[in-house]
Amino acid sequence: MILLAAFLSTSTIATGQTAEIRDAALQDDVAWDITEGLTTEVGQRLAGTEAEARARDWATAKLKSLGFANVRVEPFDMPVWVRGAESAEIVSPFPQKLVLAALGNSAATPDAGITAEVIGFDGIEALKAAPDASVRGKIVFVTHAMNSTQDGSSYGAFGIVRRQGPSIASRKGAAAIVIRSIGTDHHRNPHTGVQMWAEGTTPIPAAALSVPDAEQLQRILKRGKPVTMKLVLTPKNIGTRQSGNVIAEVPGRDPKAGIALVGCHLDSWDLGTGAIDDAAGCGIVAAAAKQVMDAGRPLRTIRVVWFGAEEVGLFGGFAYRDRHKSEKHALLAESDFGADRIWKIESKVAPAALPLVATLATRLQPLGIGLGGNEAHGGSDIGPLAATGVPVIALNQDGSRYFDLHHTPDDTLDKIDPAQLRQNVAAYATMLSVLANDTTDLGPVTVQPEG
Amino acid sequence: MILLAAFLSTSTIATGQTAEIRDAALQDDVAWDITEGLTTEVGQRLAGTEAEARARDWATAKLKSLGFANVRVEPFDMPVWVRGAESAEIVSPFPQKLVLAALGNSAATPDAGITAEVIGFDGIEALKAAPDASVRGKIVFVTHAMNSTQDGSSYGAFGIVRRQGPSIASRKGAAAIVIRSIGTDHHRNPHTGVQMWAEGTTPIPAAALSVPDAEQLQRILKRGKPVTMKLVLTPKNIGTRQSGNVIAEVPGRDPKAGIALVGCHLDSWDLGTGAIDDAAGCGIVAAAAKQVMDAGRPLRTIRVVWFGAEEVGLFGGFAYRDRHKSEKHALLAESDFGADRIWKIESKVAPAALPLVATLATRLQPLGIGLGGNEAHGGSDIGPLAATGVPVIALNQDGSRYFDLHHTPDDTLDKIDPAQLRQNVAAYATMLSVLANDTTDLGPVTVQPEG
Repeated sequence: MILLAAFLSTSTIATGQTAEIRDAALQDDVAWDITEGLTTEVGQRLAGTEAEARARDWATAKLKSLGFANVRVEPFDMPVWVRGAESAEIVSPFPQKLVLAALGNSAATPDAGITAEVIGFDGIEALKAAPDASVRGKIVFVTHAMNSTQDGSSYGAFGIVRRQGPSIASRKGAAAIVIRSIGTDHHRNPHTGVQMWAEGTTPIPAAALSVPDAEQLQRILKRGKPVTMKLVLTPKNIGTRQSGNVIAEVPGRDPKAGIALVGCHLDSWDLGTGAIDDAAGCGIVAAAAKQVMDAGRPLRTIRVVWFGAEEVGLFGGFAYRDRHKSEKHALLAESDFGADRIWKIESKVAPAALPLVATLATRLQPLGIGLGGNEAHGGSDIGPLAATGVPVIALNQDGSRYFDLHHTPDDTLDKIDPAQLRQNVAAYATMLSVLANDTTDLGPVTVQPEG
Repeated sequence: MILLAAFLSTSTIATGQTAEIRDAALQDDVAWDITEGLTTEVGQRLAGTEAEARARDWATAKLKSLGFANVRVEPFDMPVWVRGAESAEIVSPFPQKLVLAALGNSAATPDAGITAEVIGFDGIEALKAAPDASVRGKIVFVTHAMNSTQDGSSYGAFGIVRRQGPSIASRKGAAAIVIRSIGTDHHRNPHTGVQMWAEGTTPIPAAALSVPDAEQLQRILKRGKPVTMKLVLTPKNIGTRQSGNVIAEVPGRDPKAGIALVGCHLDSWDLGTGAIDDAAGCGIVAAAAKQVMDAGRPLRTIRVVWFGAEEVGLFGGFAYRDRHKSEKHALLAESDFGADRIWKIESKVAPAALPLVATLATRLQPLGIGLGGNEAHGGSDIGPLAATGVPVIALNQDGSRYFDLHHTPDDTLDKIDPAQLRQNVAAYATMLSVLANDTTDLGPVTVQPEG
């Protein structure tokens, strides 16, 4: 306790004003309004499609109507992959349909599909260890044992099956790959998600079975008879299209103090309406910025960035970094982990700035938020800029049920709890109230080279 | 308490043996084996299809292997309706796809679909009250406020939207009808189910939106702009096919004592694998009968009936009644409400038999089961025979989550809790141990004319 007290910043943050902003944010309706509006009036917003373009129009109109300055779209080009027909069935020994969804960048089967024997693996290491001859020409099935975690760390650990499985299977000559969804629910809703073909690999059809379907296939394989599957997947690469980042600002009083960037992503996967991923994040950061704006002009400029094309490869994050890296960014924060209660603040700041983070943490305690470490990741869209040494603040949502819904048809508005959403807005508003009104340098951050 | 004591039967039921059977049933693996096997090795089993025929083959082999006598199929003919393509999208004002499933006996749209304005109603009474001119040529949408209930009674109350909505909409000249699924979950899994066209009505396309999609449509309608929907449904009536009831017996010592019938239904809807509805029911009643059989020959014959073609119109229940109504049935019981914990026993017996029911209830108390009233319904397949005055015993499963899953793609094996399944087997085995070893007449039951 003595150690913590020693770290407390002596900066003269207006404690009373921050508390007022926090309490006002706990009554916020703006975040809900944005989340409800975007998911209802646009729905799914696959990157680079006409739906994402409608979302940008919706977003600029909404951000202007909220009173933000410098509302604009910064367009960029990107390659676009779109889903086609998709179906799977066990042909023998026990004929039945299975539910699946193509993974991003999956190759297509012929329209009539392919039929091949299934070979099952319990994880990525078992697949790696298999002789190529045992896999060649077959449909590879890979399962795994992902469970729910509050900090979402199991996504990193088990997501490797989606990220690496298709390339490994392709290298071994597999006809196609189906994986157990990278998810923690038991509903017939497959979890899609992007995967990139490793250099030198040939794209093959790649899809995720819903968790109940993956368990069904495991049970069928365990009977020990040869299992034949018919697979139809007809996604397409439709070439280069336009996406864009939508930006809005609260201009600061001190131009030299740098920019406090709060982000989210505007695009979504195509199966659900992208409520937890990530309409709610856009609602949270815009609502929080508005709460601070309404309380008076901050010292630093607050920049709200609704990134485009996150899901399919962080195109918006890279485009933003390339365009804005010469500007002074004081801090980066991103809400892209649903809207359940924020439980922990983490940072990635210079050691000298840790007392300020500790002060911020005390302001967040009334919201039930504890203080974590100084190795925050913070969000995928801000990753490219963070990798250049810009400080990061992470307000971590409870991820216990996030991967029940993530990238599935089930990511819809009804999964958002308005009370928890408001707690999120209050946490972000508190963070901005403290850090956009204090000019202490949070950086530079020493960047570790990629391991 | 004195009243209850006065009712206690003086029959000399072997209390010790019943307790032994109950305790053995709490270790049962047969019910799981049947539930797992039927859902894995057959999967969905739509009535009258080749899949249901495979299920009958599976069932007869399984029931013979368990040691039952007189295992046989009693075939019957029935008209068969099968699902086709199904999709829906909002064309304007907010283009997006919706998830739905055709209801049983739905008419088809043209292959290219129909496009029409949507008119929404908050319930069946609002639809009834609408002037025909306001509905004519439109796609009717009916929502409702069904919530979860332990006894499942909300299905009766709100299921009217599915059972009557299509015929009412057709009479008013609607182009089609989509309803909010008759379900209590929030997943993108629509709840199908049968509906019968009222005399004189013309079949129209009829489907159920998943609950999140129904709420989405409500939000869109509330914006107050005209809403246009495109609907594709291509189900077909494929004519008369064969279904059948699968029967197995434990022959009793006293042929005059009548038959104790325990039933379930073998067919399922086509979207899931029919685990809760009703593979588990078949597992429960067969496992319970086997537990009693293994303890020695009972007085009454126990007849296990796995009915065919329940979901689409109780064809198996009517065929059984027509064929067997002249036999003496001592009692009827059916497990068709999932496999969550049984919480209450109800009966429909002659008043003179109530002391025996009270005795049975005391045997069930160690399983956490309470005693309810004497107005049991008991199960749909046994309904036609019960309507002739045969006594009914109902062991009521907890239905709190049953309508989250009912008739959806989500009705899969992972929804069965093995521990609760065993409690079900123990309850049915206890019931059979008491009532198949006591020759007290439970009937005749006074049948109320249909209201």
